Order: sequence, then C-alpha cells, then structure tokens
Amino acid sequence: MRTISKAQAPTLSPLNIPHRLLLGPGPSNAHPEVIGAMNRSPIGHLDPAFLELMDEIQSLLRYTWQTENPMTIAVSGTGSAAMEATIANGVVPGDVVLVGVSGYFGDRLVDMVGRYGADVKKMTKPWGQVFSLEELRQAMTTHRPQVLALVHAETSTGARQPMEGVGELCREYDCLLILDTVTSLGGVPIYLDEWGVDLAYSCSQKGLGCPPGASPFTMSPRAQEKLQRRPGKVANWYLDMSLLGKYWGKERVYHHTAPTNMYYALREALRLLATEGLENSWERHQNTVEYLWQGLESMGLKMHVEKEFRLPTLTTVCIPEGVDGKALSMKLLQEHNLEIGNGLGELAGKVWRVGLMGYNSRKENVDSLLAALKQVL
Amino acid sequence: MRTISKAQAPTLSPLNIPHRLLLGPGPSNAHPEVIGAMNRSPIGHLDPAFLELMDEIQSLLRYTWQTENPMTIAVSGTGSAAMEATIANGVVPGDVVLVGVSGYFGDRLVDMVGRYGADVKKMTKPWGQVFSLEELRQAMTTHRPQVLALVHAETSTGARQPMEGVGELCREYDCLLILDTVTSLGGVPIYLDEWGVDLAYSCSQKGLGCPPGASPFTMSPRAQEKLQRRPGKVANWYLDMSLLGKYWGKERVYHHTAPTNMYYALREALRLLATEGLENSWERHQNTVEYLWQGLESMGLKMHVEKEFRLPTLTTVCIPEGVDGKALSMKLLQEHNLEIGNGLGELAGKVWRVGLMGYNSRKENVDSLLAALKQVL
Repeated sequence: MRTISKAQAPTLSPLNIPHRLLLGPGPSNAHPEVIGAMNRSPIGHLDPAFLELMDEIQSLLRYTWQTENPMTIAVSGTGSAAMEATIANGVVPGDVVLVGVSGYFGDRLVDMVGRYGADVKKMTKPWGQVFSLEELRQAMTTHRPQVLALVHAETSTGARQPMEGVGELCREYDCLLILDTVTSLGGVPIYLDEWGVDLAYSCSQKGLGCPPGASPFTMSPRAQEKLQRRPGKVANWYLDMSLLGKYWGKERVYHHTAPTNMYYALREALRLLATEGLENSWERHQNTVEYLWQGLESMGLKMHVEKEFRLPTLTTVCIPEGVDGKALSMKLLQEHNLEIGNGLGELAGKVWRVGLMGYNSRKENVDSLLAALKQVL
Repeated sequence: MRTISKAQAPTLSPLNIPHRLLLGPGPSNAHPEVIGAMNRSPIGHLDPAFLELMDEIQSLLRYTWQTENPMTIAVSGTGSAAMEATIANGVVPGDVVLVGVSGYFGDRLVDMVGRYGADVKKMTKPWGQVFSLEELRQAMTTHRPQVLALVHAETSTGARQPMEGVGELCREYDCLLILDTVTSLGGVPIYLDEWGVDLAYSCSQKGLGCPPGASPFTMSPRAQEKLQRRPGKVANWYLDMSLLGKYWGKERVYHHTAPTNMYYALREALRLLATEGLENSWERHQNTVEYLWQGLESMGLKMHVEKEFRLPTLTTVCIPEGVDGKALSMKLLQEHNLEIGNGLGELAGKVWRVGLMGYNSRKENVDSLLAALKQVL
C-alpha cells in the first residue's frame, strides 16, 4: 500500500454547533418534531415504504400550494435547485422570457434564464416595489414573451407581488407563468391554480419549518405539454422533469438517489402544516408580523416596504442614520445567538432583514428580538 | 379569505419508517453518530460557525480523496448532482469527450455530456469488464478528446477500473480526466493526485456512511484554469463552480442556501473515517467482502466480475438458473427487512447487487445476509 498523506486530516472533536434563534431570511429554526424525523436510518429510494412517503409529500405539497398539478414533487436540493428546475423545464432555447426584477432574486432569474438560451427581457422597478397589472400588460404587449417569470415573495426586499389577474394575462398572450414562492409557501396565501401559475418553486427552510435540502417544485399540465413537445433534451440531467416524472409517477424508474432523511423531514413539516391548517398558518404569520411592526415602530424604526405590499414572512427594516448595520447584526449573533439578515444589492447597508417564518413565526420570538435590539442599538 | 381546498390534504399519522438493513447499491445505513449529528437546529449559511464547518469538510474530503485540490467541496444534492457538476464545469460546448462505458453509469455520463454540448465518443465493453491502458491509449489516439471520463467503481456491475497510467496518458494528450468515485470513496483505495485525476465526484451514502444529500466534488488547478478561460457562463447556475468557489473560498459570497443538516452529517462521517484511518477503512472493506465471497461460493453462488477487478464495496452475484431474482429480493425486504439490489440494464434479471459500504461493511452483516439468503433460496 502506498503512503497515505495525513496533511489534510485535521484532528477534530465531535460536532459542536451553537444554538441560534434564526430570524433572518432563512434558514429558520425547524420544528423539533421535524428535526426528530430525520433521526432515523435511511431506506432505499425504491423501497415500497419510501415510495409511499413520496406520494404523501406530493399530496401535501398540492394542498400547501392549492394546486391539482400531478407533477408536484420535491427536488433533491435547496430552493435554488427548484428555481433552476422551473427554468430548465419551462424554457426552450430561443424563447422570449420576460422577468420582473425588483430585487436580488429577480436578477438571479435573469442570470439563470440566460444560461438556458432564452432571449431575456427585464422589467425593472426599485427594490422593494411591485409590478401593477397595467405595467405587466404593457411589458407583455411590448415583448410578447413565451414565459413570464415573477417573484411572489422577494426575499431580498420583503415585498409581495399581487397576483390577481396575472394568470389571465398570461393566457391571453399564450405565455407560461413561473412564480418564485420561496419566501411565501406555507406562510402567505397562495392559490396556485386560481392564479393560473404554470411553474412554481419553493424551499423547505422558511414557511415550512424544515431544514434546507429538499425543495418543492410544481408544473401545470400546460407546462408539461410544452416539456413533451420540446425539441431536444432538457439541458440539465439532474433536474429533468421528463425523467423525474417517471420516478415520482407510476413507472417508478430509478433516476437518482433521493436525500431520504430530508424527505422524512419534509413530510413531517408538511403534515404538521396540514394539521394546523393552511388558513391558520397564514393568519399566525400575519398576526406575528404585525406585532413585530408595532414593536419596531414603537422603537422609532421604519419599514422599507409600503404596508400594503409587505410580506408577513420577511420584513426589511431601515437601518437608522449613523448605525453600522453589519456590526449590529454580528453583535446580535455573537452576544445573543440571534440571527437577522443584512441587506443585499441595492439595499446593502440600508436595511436589515427579519424573518418570522414557519415554526419561528411566534410572538415570543418577536419579544426576544425586540429586547435584544434595544440592548445593542 | 377564499376557500381552501382540502382535497389534497391526507390525514396522516406521524412518520413511521421500517428499519432496514441496507445491503444494496446504496443508500447504506449511516453510522448512528452521523444520524445523531443531524438532530440539531439548522444555523445560517453565513454564520461563522457554519463557515468553519465548511472548511473542515473541505480538509476532510481532501484527505479522503488524497488530493491537495483547493476546490474540493460538497455539492448541495445527491451524487448525480456532483456528477453533473464535473461535466458542467469541465466540459466546454464543442469539446470531444471520450467516455468509457461498461455499465449504467458510463451510459449516464454519455447522456449528461451530450446535454452540455459536447461531441461524445463512446468506448464500450461488456458490463462488468474494465478498460486496459492499451485500449484507452488506442481510443485516445483515435478520438483526441479534450476530456476523458471514466467510472472508477461501476455501481451497476461491481467492477473496479484500474487507474495506473491513465493520468499520464491524459497529460500526454492534453486532456482532462473525470473520474466517478461514487462507489469507491472511503472504501476503495484512491490516490487522486497521484492518479492525475482532474475532476471527481462521489456521494455521501456509500463508503462514507452518511445519509444521501450532500456530495463530494473536487477539481484540480488544471481544471480550474479551463473553467476560468471558458467562453460564456457555465450552463448550470446551481452547480457553477466559479460562483460556488466564491462561497467556499475566502470571499464567502452567498450563492445558495446549503443543506445545513446534511453538512453536519457529512462532517461527522468524514471525521469518523479520518479517526478510523483511510487505510484501515480500505482494509476493513476488503476483509468483509472476501468473507462475503467465501460465504456465497460455499452456497454454490458465483460472482459476475473477475476476481482481480471486483470492488470491495459492491458485488454482483449471478442469479442461479430458475430463480426469479426480483421476487427473491422483494422477499428479503419484506420478510427479513434486508435490502439488496437488482440488476440494471444489461445485467437486469442476471445479477443481484450486494453492497457492503461504510458503516455496513461488517462481518455480522454478511452473516445476516447469508442466513437470510439460505432461507429464501
């Protein structure tokens, strides 16, 4: 046997991770029962018991999104993988794709769409604002896109895009509608079918109260038809829904090994949400965030987004004049084990991002945050 | 509030997963300490404590692969995602890519490489055989590829590709070398730098004794230079190493949310492996599999692969004349909670696949399998 180099083998103690209260843009703390669900051995990805679990995840995701889409699954990666899956499967090279950009994740959509050979058209607004139906109609008339991609809940700004009428507009122009619901699923009202959304994605570690690693994806029959008609293969093997559909569907053809323990967790997170009831979860998120807003306002702090368009899951708080935002959030982490997010892009240095999502959307967490903020400000 | 459809909300009990002894092609049972490591709350993907954990994973992966490659990371998906990452980053559209195919995963490489715009050339051999250095040289001379892709450990056949001299050959032809080490990392001797491998991938749920969901990836400085020189962006955002390098490297620029709890598990699995010592793990795998082969032979069963090229991690066992292989493996699962794999592709109906990997590579598991096999045969 040849010599084995030990140069890269540090001598380490068993894992020691600090406990943090995660009130940033995500991940959020997962429900203890969800964490506990992972605490078992994996089973095979073709085991009948595992296939049953997959069916349960599909049903529960349909409920959570309020959709009947047969092709509703969990992607084996974090939210960005599910995001890329909507583009890889919904966009054909040469498509005109219109993207609404008023935050970091709109820009990311533009980047991804470009990589899949589309002719990208950007609609832009200042970060924190949303698009009116009239503005969308004008852009649709100008660009005549094959796909419109919007962010329902912009994690970088805390703004909620109103969706009324957008689906009808897309049908008028024979255009597919992609929707980012990463920071809304589970915590913000979504009626996917009623809204006429064709492709949507989300993550597990926000409104669903699960660790990150398995991510909701759904596509409408209209989007599936386009996938079947497309010339050539999807330019991404791991996320190819024509292959994944045969694993999640009746055929049960092996595609790739699923992240089994993440599916255990996701199933439990979705079950707990269904047990609480979607409407109750939405109401809880709304009540908790209004309690936060009142608390922040009573401290003299201002929110970045107009109240009408604020998300219940994520709030952008304006950093007061003269305060070093990054230093303050680091102090909260180090002295209070409490995480909030810093601003991204246009909002870097201007806002903090406070998430109250899933299991973390509770008034006692708001109290902890306000108390800690008062100490460090 | 509009009506919420409950049509897709099944009333479910808490999760109930049977305990299986996983002696198939993977996943394998994870080490109990590794499972336990996931049993904690997520932390932020930019938390200093998490960044330290990422550094530890990088070092431990370098040790496990015996490489000094700076760009050695865990991909946020299962092994197939890491596989696709080597191609997305190592292949430029128009490249001639030579792929050695003597099993299912060689064919998958061909499929993936085609999706990234390469001119794919296949070298084929019957499933279960390997390529000699002379055969590789001839194919290199014929095709003059920019990339050679080989499978070190073919999970579908149980054959081990000898790697001596292949790296030198690739340098002679100024060609990058991609190596699939999904079923070898941790359990089979690998000397990545000595072998001159430029891009390699693996999974967590086999030789490393971890659940699936975070997957080793490495690329050499030579491959990184090609990535820097490439015209246009990598055709895959989630797996783009030019972006991921800025998150795993010194810049710490946010790319996507990591599957935090999977990283906890992977770190612990790698730490336990380093504590055991690579050479001891390799020896344990070899001793355990030889004990299996003896046991099977004493039952009159035959192995599919020539002894010289058999993997210590995965064995293909010929199904005796007149036996329904699939019915037998289903019986093992249902009556003995014991999973073995069925044959794929050319070997469907001809072999079973028995894995003894990571934590599962122990003689008592061989005893359990042999006892169960005797009962059902």
